[in-house]
Amino acid sequence: MKLKMSRDELERFLHEHFPQVGGDFTVIEVVPREIAVRMKVDHRNLRPGNTVSGPSMFALADVTMYLAVLSLIGPEALAVTTSCAIDFMRKPAAGRDLIARGRVLKLGRALAVGDVLVYSNGAEEPVARAGITYSIPPARQITEA
Amino acid sequence: MKLKMSRDELERFLHEHFPQVGGDFTVIEVVPREIAVRMKVDHRNLRPGNTVSGPSMFALADVTMYLAVLSLIGPEALAVTTSCAIDFMRKPAAGRDLIARGRVLKLGRALAVGDVLVYSNGAEEPVARAGITYSIPPARQITEA
Amino acid sequence: MKLKMSRDELERFLHEHFPQVGGDFTVIEVVPREIAVRMKVDHRNLRPGNTVSGPSMFALADVTMYLAVLSLIGPEALAVTTSCAIDFMRKPAAGRDLIARGRVLKLGRALAVGDVLVYSNGAEEPVARAGITYSIPPARQITEA
Amino acid sequence: MKLKMSRDELERFLHEHFPQVGGDFTVIEVVPREIAVRMKVDHRNLRPGNTVSGPSMFALADVTMYLAVLSLIGPEALAVTTSCAIDFMRKPAAGRDLIARGRVLKLGRALAVGDVLVYSNGAEEPVARAGITYSIPPARQITEA
Repeated sequence: MKLKMSRDELERFLHEHFPQVGGDFTVIEVVPREIAVRMKVDHRNLRPGNTVSGPSMFALADVTMYLAVLSLIGPEALAVTTSCAIDFMRKPAAGRDLIARGRVLKLGRALAVGDVLVYSNGAEEPVARAGITYSIPPARQITEA
Repeated sequence: MKLKMSRDELERFLHEHFPQVGGDFTVIEVVPREIAVRMKVDHRNLRPGNTVSGPSMFALADVTMYLAVLSLIGPEALAVTTSCAIDFMRKPAAGRDLIARGRVLKLGRALAVGDVLVYSNGAEEPVARAGITYSIPPARQITEA
Repeated sequence: MKLKMSRDELERFLHEHFPQVGGDFTVIEVVPREIAVRMKVDHRNLRPGNTVSGPSMFALADVTMYLAVLSLIGPEALAVTTSCAIDFMRKPAAGRDLIARGRVLKLGRALAVGDVLVYSNGAEEPVARAGITYSIPPARQITEA
Repeated sequence: MKLKMSRDELERFLHEHFPQVGGDFTVIEVVPREIAVRMKVDHRNLRPGNTVSGPSMFALADVTMYLAVLSLIGPEALAVTTSCAIDFMRKPAAGRDLIARGRVLKLGRALAVGDVLVYSNGAEEPVARAGITYSIPPARQITEA
């Protein structure tokens, strides 16, 4: 499996198609079936107990799998999340960005399945773990080798 | 099981403890173990294909279960989501608020479990379904009758 | 949406295609988009603490959604589960059968989504809750009205 | 984190406390926070389309996480699964045993969280992926270092 989009192409795509949130995310690294993404954490993401909100971690996990799938199928804004099961395991540190590491476990004709670990930047233990399924629009469908 | 917080108390609590997002949510109705919550949808929630973002639906499902749990245990900002499994089933309409209907299926000593259906306002079929578990801090623990 | 298989047809189908387990399940009632299924609990399903095993509850939830989907699309042995998120909420009673109540929340071209509540027979509070997605083989695909 | 139970102790525990199913599982390897478990596949596990049943894969994922947790907390038959989100990604081969690789991502006071990949023996791509949470009984609670 080869990359169809580079790190720079993924970031440009995100800025163009998701102008409301694209600037919050940076692609750290992408290789076939694996990606690392950073999310800027600011006051909008904070919650009582001096921690980062669950929806912020969800948003990062979701974007991470989206970009991992796009890196393999090419620019396709209409790929949509069909399901996500996320476990929140530890309190993220309030003053640190979040880092997500995603991997694609299956790229099928219609569905892509993967998982994501989310970390507070610099920490060793993950704060959250998510299994995510994306639906791939028919026009861009691709089959596993 | 009796309500420990009314609709108005839930809304005030949300505004006070979650100033960044509290204004987006309105409690439509709350009875023991069931709640309905409305989320204002604006341009920040929109996505390609003229629809509402997954993280917005997640945020609504999460807040809905949070308020359903608080209505039974009383004001407790530090209750935290431990897991959420969400299925995205249909595209929400871009120009409509989202309505969530949540129910608490278990209120245990340490964990509360429930589920939520999310609708585009006025539509009959749900756009998303979530099963959510909340961890209840020891100080406020409560046991099922 | 109309039923394409009656209660008796669903049971015959199960016995024929799943000879190893079909005899454990009884369809109590089926209407469009809703079904109730009973599972016989015997010593093979028991676990330490005098309760019923998690895999037994999973198997019942899975069969229940399978039959609910078949009741709407017709006999199709090759429909397959793509995901299941199950919460175990209470200990089932060891000496009682399990009852599952399933509903289909979406019947799409390629995926069917629903959820299931599992009860110990005679009890009011559910022991488990599952959200389940089934993949529908192309030959039998059906669209929502 | 150190092992409190060896491979042999885990297998003896399983045979003793789960006489109905213990013989189906073999611990291949266990190190702190990681484990590999094999499940014997026979005619009872098979399904239409010459494949292995979903409940069989669920049972293996569940046992794998259970043993991974026990290896860290010691023999504790009453640890119970509180939730499992499983994605079925590929058809397992009918004639091959299943191999599961589990890791513990969090071992908290009351909850342990981990995930499991399931493979057909000899295959490179996983057939299923599960995120699993176990509840740890108070008597044996252990805290992360």
